[in-house]
Amino acid sequence: MDLYEKTVNKNYVYKGKIIKVRRDDAMLPNGNTAVREVVEHTGGVAILATDNDCVYMVEQFRYPFEEVILELPAGKLNENENPKECAARELKEETGLTCATLKYIGCFYPSPGYALESLHIYVAEGLSKGKSKLDPDEFLNVKKIKLSEIRKLIETNVIKDAKTVIALLYYFNYLCKE
Amino acid sequence: MDLYEKTVNKNYVYKGKIIKVRRDDAMLPNGNTAVREVVEHTGGVAILATDNDCVYMVEQFRYPFEEVILELPAGKLNENENPKECAARELKEETGLTCATLKYIGCFYPSPGYALESLHIYVAEGLSKGKSKLDPDEFLNVKKIKLSEIRKLIETNVIKDAKTVIALLYYFNYLCKE
Repeated sequence: MDLYEKTVNKNYVYKGKIIKVRRDDAMLPNGNTAVREVVEHTGGVAILATDNDCVYMVEQFRYPFEEVILELPAGKLNENENPKECAARELKEETGLTCATLKYIGCFYPSPGYALESLHIYVAEGLSKGKSKLDPDEFLNVKKIKLSEIRKLIETNVIKDAKTVIALLYYFNYLCKE
Repeated sequence: MDLYEKTVNKNYVYKGKIIKVRRDDAMLPNGNTAVREVVEHTGGVAILATDNDCVYMVEQFRYPFEEVILELPAGKLNENENPKECAARELKEETGLTCATLKYIGCFYPSPGYALESLHIYVAEGLSKGKSKLDPDEFLNVKKIKLSEIRKLIETNVIKDAKTVIALLYYFNYLCKE
C-alpha cells in the first residue's frame, strides 16, 4: 500500500522558546484531507559516559511531569550545531567530564507521530573530571551508578526516560564486554 | 540540591486534535522565574506481539519526518482509557491479532523535557489472527519479521522509533529465552 501523505497547507500556530507548533492539512493516500499536528524541536543528544563498571547519571526535575527523574546527561542541539560537538559540550556542562572517545550509537525519534525531534546517542569513554558549568535555568545532581544497578533500575521501570533506556539497553545488548 | 520548580502561571497557547500546548511561568530553585513549554498528550501504548521467533511490525508514514518507518503496533490512549484495553484494541485494529496474554513491561517518557506524554509497553503472546480495522485516516503495512533480523535492524539504527527500540531491547535483555 502507498502510505505517503502530501502537505496541502503548513500553518504555524505557535513559535516559542524551544518548540514550534504547526497545524497542517495533509492529503492522505485515499485522497481525503486530514489535520496533522507537528511539534518542531531542534533535537538533542544523550551521552552514556562510562568508567569501568559505572555510568554517570543526572537527577533532574522534569517540569511537565513535576517529577525528579534519573537520566543520562543530555541536552538540546543549538541551531545548526554538530551533534557530536553538542554531546561533548553537554557532557562537560552537566558533569564536568571530558572524554577521549565519543562513539555514535544512532539517531532515534522519541515521538514520531507528532514530534519532529531526533535524539543522537553517544558512548563516552576515557573520562577526565573537570568542573561543570550549568545553564542559568538548569539544576541537577550528578550520580555515578554501577552498571549492574542500572540494569535492575531499567528492568523494574524505575528509569523511565526513553533516551536513557535506549542508550543503556543498546549498550548492554551490543557493546558491553560483560 | 533541591530541584523543584513551582508553577507560577499555567497558560494554554494551543488546544488541538491530539496535543495541547502550554507556555507556563515557573519559579526555579534559585527563586528566579523561567518560561516552561509543555506539550500535553494523552499518551499511548506499544505492543510487542511475538509468535515463536517472529514479531509483528507495521510500516507507517510519519508525517513530521515525511518518512515511512518501521514500528511496533501502537496507538494513542483515548481519554480515560485503560492502557491494557488500549493495547488489546490497537493490536486488533492495526494487525487483526488477538492475544491470550498481555504482559506489562513498563511506562516510559519519550521526551520529558517538554512533553507530558507516557508510553505503556506490553508483550502480547498466544496470538490468533483475525481481521484488522484501521481508523479512517490511518494507513499501514503489517510485516512479520524474525527476531534475529530485528536485532540487526536495531544495532544498525535502521529502526529509529523510540518505543519500538525500548520494547525490543527490553525483550532481548530481560525476557527472551534465547
